[in-house]
Amino acid sequence: MNAPELVERVHGGDRRALARAITLVENGAEELRPIMAGLAPHTGRARVVGFTGSPGVGKSTTTNAVVRAVRAQGRTVAVLAVDPSSPFTGGALLGDRVRMQEHATDPGVYIRSMANRGHLGGLSWATPHALRVLDAAGFDVILVETVGVGQAEVDIAGQADTTVVLCAPGMGDSVQAAKAGVLEVADVFAINKADRDGARVTLRELRQMIAMKDRTDEEWKPPIVMTVAAEDKGVDELWERIDGHFAHLESSGELAARRSARARDEVQAIVLDLLRSRLGGVETDGGLDSLAREVASGERDPYGAADLLLKELGATSGL
Amino acid sequence: MNAPELVERVHGGDRRALARAITLVENGAEELRPIMAGLAPHTGRARVVGFTGSPGVGKSTTTNAVVRAVRAQGRTVAVLAVDPSSPFTGGALLGDRVRMQEHATDPGVYIRSMANRGHLGGLSWATPHALRVLDAAGFDVILVETVGVGQAEVDIAGQADTTVVLCAPGMGDSVQAAKAGVLEVADVFAINKADRDGARVTLRELRQMIAMKDRTDEEWKPPIVMTVAAEDKGVDELWERIDGHFAHLESSGELAARRSARARDEVQAIVLDLLRSRLGGVETDGGLDSLAREVASGERDPYGAADLLLKELGATSGL
Repeated sequence: MNAPELVERVHGGDRRALARAITLVENGAEELRPIMAGLAPHTGRARVVGFTGSPGVGKSTTTNAVVRAVRAQGRTVAVLAVDPSSPFTGGALLGDRVRMQEHATDPGVYIRSMANRGHLGGLSWATPHALRVLDAAGFDVILVETVGVGQAEVDIAGQADTTVVLCAPGMGDSVQAAKAGVLEVADVFAINKADRDGARVTLRELRQMIAMKDRTDEEWKPPIVMTVAAEDKGVDELWERIDGHFAHLESSGELAARRSARARDEVQAIVLDLLRSRLGGVETDGGLDSLAREVASGERDPYGAADLLLKELGATSGL
Repeated sequence: MNAPELVERVHGGDRRALARAITLVENGAEELRPIMAGLAPHTGRARVVGFTGSPGVGKSTTTNAVVRAVRAQGRTVAVLAVDPSSPFTGGALLGDRVRMQEHATDPGVYIRSMANRGHLGGLSWATPHALRVLDAAGFDVILVETVGVGQAEVDIAGQADTTVVLCAPGMGDSVQAAKAGVLEVADVFAINKADRDGARVTLRELRQMIAMKDRTDEEWKPPIVMTVAAEDKGVDELWERIDGHFAHLESSGELAARRSARARDEVQAIVLDLLRSRLGGVETDGGLDSLAREVASGERDPYGAADLLLKELGATSGL
């Protein structure tokens, strides 16, 4: 399948083409350039909702429940589960197969895991690219689910129009994680497993955290929804709140601003990746490796080495 | 305090100077350049040991126990706790104060948390810089402890001479995380809370994972240590294994290779950070922002936009 064919088939919603395109994204393949160019005119339609939270809060259960809620409205939905730490290719993940079963016969649902072998921000464009592919394939809603807690997760949350932060009662880690950075990106909070002891305490803590931030009347204040996703409880309300946030984004003009910011990050990531690969080829006295040895031994400081590299990059590359 | 003074005092082990230097690193301050240059000749001595693992495995308890083991040998030790997702400055973290208490009167111990507001790899040099500061201050051993699971953690593990991956029985997540990427960076495994049910199962699983990888006789095979860090059990053995790994690194010549690779990453991160700040200032038709809007709306593809930016960067910057 050449690039124009692949683009055509992805746009037509062909599952095999979709899978192939996302694998190319995962592998950072060189063929991506014409594919992304071809897909670009078909993008900008899908709504992207991110789900984030500590391991154990019930992210995949909640995502699955939301898939049902979205489907009940007749909209198509794709799930992209991103594991920033996984070196394995996602297509074969056991979890996918288990999760696919419920929706296996529903052509309006597509579920895919993706590994992200990013290093030093190298593949920062992987998630945006995969979203592009799913967007161009015509899904109405894309749910992005991340594994783990940390900067990678915050970054991925930044790819969504609406970010849902999940907590669960009795998980100190969960609220702690929410406090530490994830709070900033939360548009909607869900306290899952809300039938458990401590749900009220978690609710109170979250309310306090939300109240601590100064907001104007026009600014969005993240609502908190109590859910028991495993029993489908609270999931319709959760989706209503997500819908409400999207309406706010549209009416306030913030949607366009968020999407531009994402595109900006994506373009920057590509540029930096191109520059990084050129850096590897720069010829300094003895090359980058001997420079690194000098820095490691303390003979040269890292900024001095960086200046030298930049100078060489300017002199030798096509820049 | 000007840069030469700060350098002098950090090298002399002055605590206030140390704290100030690491805060500058955290904030990505412009003054870092002369400070890092001044500190460079004093670096390359300290041994860096990383501790990583899912929340709840007992990372800080284990780190504290290892601090005691290292001190018992008469060596000085610094602990750097890196929270990749935290937007808060680390010096004031409650955890630090609690943890400091045990060692408050010991001048041979220094404990410091550091936030890392890195975005798109922007502050990839923060941890290496902080390690540089502690190295130049003369600590024999630096323990780096990371919070959370994910790519950021794997990256930070890459900053250590020896990386210890912690697991705990009955935490499916823990072994799962180990499988997914962290395994690749593990030099030593510790199964903490080894008095709990399921410790044998975790041991067996880890052994199987380790056995799956092909190794030559010369290659290091990660040992597994059972610990109950809260009761100081197994901690001496853990430190012996870490010592054993360091001896292996020295005898095999791998130590120099690892440190050069780290220095290389550090220099690249600085170069990319400098390039990124220049990118922000590039003047394209209407600027980067209008380019981003076109990409967001699908009028332009991200690679086309990246090419344009690169061209402008070459034309307008000093590169």
